Amino acid sequence: MVGHMWVLNGPARAAIASGLWFIKSKSNQKAFTYLVAGSAALGYGLSRVTEAEAARALRPIQTDKFMAKPITDLDKMQREREDMKIRMELLILRIQAEFCHALEAEETSGAKFRVDRWRRKEGGGGISCVLQDGQVFEKAGVNISVVHGSLPPPAVAQMNARGKHLPDGIKLPFFAAGVSSVIHPTNPYVPTIHFNYRYFEVQSEDGKPMGWWFGGGTDLTPYYLNEEDAKHFHSTLKRACDKHDPGYYRRFKTWCDNYFMVKHRGERRGVGGIFFDDVDTPSKEEAFLFVESCAEAVLPSYLPILQKHKDDGYGYAERQWQLLRRGRYVEFNLIYDRGTKFGLFTPGARYESILMSLPLTARWEYMHAPKPGSPEERLTEVLKNPRDWV
Amino acid sequence: MVGHMWVLNGPARAAIASGLWFIKSKSNQKAFTYLVAGSAALGYGLSRVTEAEAARALRPIQTDKFMAKPITDLDKMQREREDMKIRMELLILRIQAEFCHALEAEETSGAKFRVDRWRRKEGGGGISCVLQDGQVFEKAGVNISVVHGSLPPPAVAQMNARGKHLPDGIKLPFFAAGVSSVIHPTNPYVPTIHFNYRYFEVQSEDGKPMGWWFGGGTDLTPYYLNEEDAKHFHSTLKRACDKHDPGYYRRFKTWCDNYFMVKHRGERRGVGGIFFDDVDTPSKEEAFLFVESCAEAVLPSYLPILQKHKDDGYGYAERQWQLLRRGRYVEFNLIYDRGTKFGLFTPGARYESILMSLPLTARWEYMHAPKPGSPEERLTEVLKNPRDWV
Repeated sequence: MVGHMWVLNGPARAAIASGLWFIKSKSNQKAFTYLVAGSAALGYGLSRVTEAEAARALRPIQTDKFMAKPITDLDKMQREREDMKIRMELLILRIQAEFCHALEAEETSGAKFRVDRWRRKEGGGGISCVLQDGQVFEKAGVNISVVHGSLPPPAVAQMNARGKHLPDGIKLPFFAAGVSSVIHPTNPYVPTIHFNYRYFEVQSEDGKPMGWWFGGGTDLTPYYLNEEDAKHFHSTLKRACDKHDPGYYRRFKTWCDNYFMVKHRGERRGVGGIFFDDVDTPSKEEAFLFVESCAEAVLPSYLPILQKHKDDGYGYAERQWQLLRRGRYVEFNLIYDRGTKFGLFTPGARYESILMSLPLTARWEYMHAPKPGSPEERLTEVLKNPRDWV
Repeated sequence: MVGHMWVLNGPARAAIASGLWFIKSKSNQKAFTYLVAGSAALGYGLSRVTEAEAARALRPIQTDKFMAKPITDLDKMQREREDMKIRMELLILRIQAEFCHALEAEETSGAKFRVDRWRRKEGGGGISCVLQDGQVFEKAGVNISVVHGSLPPPAVAQMNARGKHLPDGIKLPFFAAGVSSVIHPTNPYVPTIHFNYRYFEVQSEDGKPMGWWFGGGTDLTPYYLNEEDAKHFHSTLKRACDKHDPGYYRRFKTWCDNYFMVKHRGERRGVGGIFFDDVDTPSKEEAFLFVESCAEAVLPSYLPILQKHKDDGYGYAERQWQLLRRGRYVEFNLIYDRGTKFGLFTPGARYESILMSLPLTARWEYMHAPKPGSPEERLTEVLKNPRDWV
């Protein structure tokens, strides 16, 4: 088989996909395949699409492995399966479920994620999964949200300041879908991990697409520096980047070091990772595949570190240091993080989902300074002067 | 004696005050009084001043009760004693010391405030007093700062947006002096208290005064609602306000309820108190006396509540609730508080002093909701719907 084939395009495909879905829901898989083959043979509304696209259009959406029912109506998802909005929703649903199940397998207490599926009055909704007060995980949150509505003019102005070319001074319809997660493990020798991958679309007042981009990142916040772990983490992310562009890792690693900066302290919140925004090249397809690779790299970047250290012995001093560092994490998230701010200032935002990123416990000591030569100071040194890990 | 007397004015008074200071430092109090009387008799540079002013000019500055040496040079303070900048510095030095000593007297472990006197490279400095990990006080911070420098144009623009009439687009010299305190007691039945009183002056590029105002407030954050305590607290503040303007308490109580709002949760951080900014009427003298009354009301508003509850029995559940509420306090301070933001974004800011307001420990639980009918819910109810207490 070559890399492309001819199948129905646009409305024709949507109409058939919708039919397929109907048939599938009647559990008549054979009739479904037959119908597609037959329709395609009509030579009606043909266009050139990739094999992958064709395969997707044929395969009904499986929702049984997701943490909850998708946000978007299933019929609509099946009909508009080729739309990036739907593809992104399916990606984040899958990533959320894979990540949650992998963490549950590590949680020795048997605790499971609590799942809250919520709707947003202004449009869309989300699924928040939180596991709290476990043995391995003190607090683990994995959220997805799929929202749409109107961007207020100040938000549009801010996007234009970042280089977009959107019409000024009017409300614009937008769509955003993303997965966002912060894992605070119990053991101070296991780092905190955060990742977030999102797709954003702005439409004109009459609903035409006006701009789209992807953003995201994965970053690691250890309490004690383990160079081998940092190298493993960064090289896993680098491999994911390298598959798409040889320049991505270097660029997005630096971006990450600059972004996760607790400015008033002059230190990063961790050993970094990758971070990017406004990715809209070389094509929508390529950008999506890049984001998919990044999101799929999260588990292999983190799981071995978690497994290696979750049973490490530690004492009171290590726990206190972990709590202090969690205080710094709170400082970054509440003072500097664009996502948290954007979230909290959005009308109808679900603050419980946004603030799930905060640790169960944090501590602030006046004028704390790690002892010279201590492991705590060694970490601080790296936070002040980020290193190259690969 | 009548309310006014004739003494030397302006430069003449400054010159003599400077002489007085010199004489006082030689411990020759009699010669000092004699000199003033003699100079005044010369009839040279006379002007009408209040008795209070005259008494102040005659009395050398006593620094032995302060937590540390004043920030401004003592000779300069003595010479320019009538300048509001100096009067405010003396007020906040006194309030800081009175408050710290009163708290130390309540701290059963015998722990004392750690005192850090610091200089700011860009001009001025401060004195930070922190008592941490005591028996009665988990974390208590009482700071003063006396700083001067250049206001960047965005800060000027912000002030103009608030109704000032300062020239746009240029750096303006400023002076600010204030006392700021947050006390987090150990016992969940003792509320957290915060107060802050400050004086702000903007000068033209050639050093002439262009604007001045006072700001401040005192507010109470209980973990459990005690109506009697809330009434005592509010009526003490009301009495301080009523001495100066019958409308102040009502106005500044409402301002406080609106200001200390954790917007994303739709709840205030506590039962309020008073809060104001930009107070520049009816005169500089009257505004100062009002702020002085407020600052002097802090101890009587709080000390009886502290003494009443510091030995109350409590258990694990009360402690956990206190930690959750402390998390909300962190949210307010890091996301919404203007003072914290202004502080952290000011070049050369001492972040340890700004962040001393954060509790030693805080907690965030996903989707926590107090049990219906519980004391915790009763507090939440008041945070959502602020009451009139007097």
